[in-house]
Amino acid sequence: MTTKRGRPGYDLESLLLVAVKLFNERGYDGTSMEDLARKLGITKSAIYYHVPSKDELLRLAVDRALDGLFAVVAEVDNLPGRAIDRLEHVLRGSVAVLVERLPFVTLLLRVRGNTKVERAALARRREFDHLITDLVKQAEAEGDVREGLDPATVARLLFGMVNSLTEWYRPRRGSDHAELADTVCHMAFDGIRRP
Amino acid sequence: MTTKRGRPGYDLESLLLVAVKLFNERGYDGTSMEDLARKLGITKSAIYYHVPSKDELLRLAVDRALDGLFAVVAEVDNLPGRAIDRLEHVLRGSVAVLVERLPFVTLLLRVRGNTKVERAALARRREFDHLITDLVKQAEAEGDVREGLDPATVARLLFGMVNSLTEWYRPRRGSDHAELADTVCHMAFDGIRRP
Repeated sequence: MTTKRGRPGYDLESLLLVAVKLFNERGYDGTSMEDLARKLGITKSAIYYHVPSKDELLRLAVDRALDGLFAVVAEVDNLPGRAIDRLEHVLRGSVAVLVERLPFVTLLLRVRGNTKVERAALARRREFDHLITDLVKQAEAEGDVREGLDPATVARLLFGMVNSLTEWYRPRRGSDHAELADTVCHMAFDGIRRP
Repeated sequence: MTTKRGRPGYDLESLLLVAVKLFNERGYDGTSMEDLARKLGITKSAIYYHVPSKDELLRLAVDRALDGLFAVVAEVDNLPGRAIDRLEHVLRGSVAVLVERLPFVTLLLRVRGNTKVERAALARRREFDHLITDLVKQAEAEGDVREGLDPATVARLLFGMVNSLTEWYRPRRGSDHAELADTVCHMAFDGIRRP
């Protein structure tokens, strides 16, 4: 980061981080480019040098979250072996993505579909949900899932657990997301009851 | 509901339902009493006949959610038997509360603590979380929970699952919350893996 005339300089990355933090605090709709400029201590035109619009900042932010999640699914796409193991891999990878990209995923989960960018994000979320549901279905077809569970409901509850991290996980509590992923997978696959 | 001069009349209950729906759609901060009056087709003073402020509407709404959840915990408070069974009872009861009071719980989960009413709601949520964590601890002490799981994390993940209902559960999909509670408890206690 370089300073010019006593003011901090931002690249797109550091600007995006501040923007996402502000969107999460005040709501995307409730944050103007004026607010963002004030927070950054730069002019609006200095922001527009990096991005054409607030909408584009949102697009970059939610894509950061979604690209991470889709990359995890892509990893297992052509993996041999059982679907339930691929599902576990996806669950672990998703916990890692949430921990590493927490502000981005937090913003993604609050998107309600008021704009074209938001609707595109919701469409990708639905696509992701379908991929998870399909994995659960495959695992069920392979006989690895308890009978009588609805795959779509299972997929939603699994990601209800994972997504709840945006509500309560704080990086300062130690950044060992492997342990957290262990707990999520223990609960999801084997339950908390001692066998 | 009676009509006066061609306009619908509201009692506090029906007024509250419309208000909560509007708060959930537009955000509590983004909804004015003017907006609410327009939506109801009545004057602002007609609203003030029932409640002194928007804040009071929020308080009534989030308490509807919180009272339901605390009533479930109170039910098991003096119940004999094992903590893990009480935990299961609380989980089932909470699913029922979420299904029956969905708009109220949805609003509660979006509260961020900007006002006194919101901070009071957050304080009650934390108290509820502690009660759940204590139940998990007791169940662990009684040897009914898998070793090596952190009780606070387990409590948060369990309610991550339950609370996710506000994101995806739609009453029209059939109102059989017993089946939904079964799925949540199967996952939570025994996991989805076929034994």
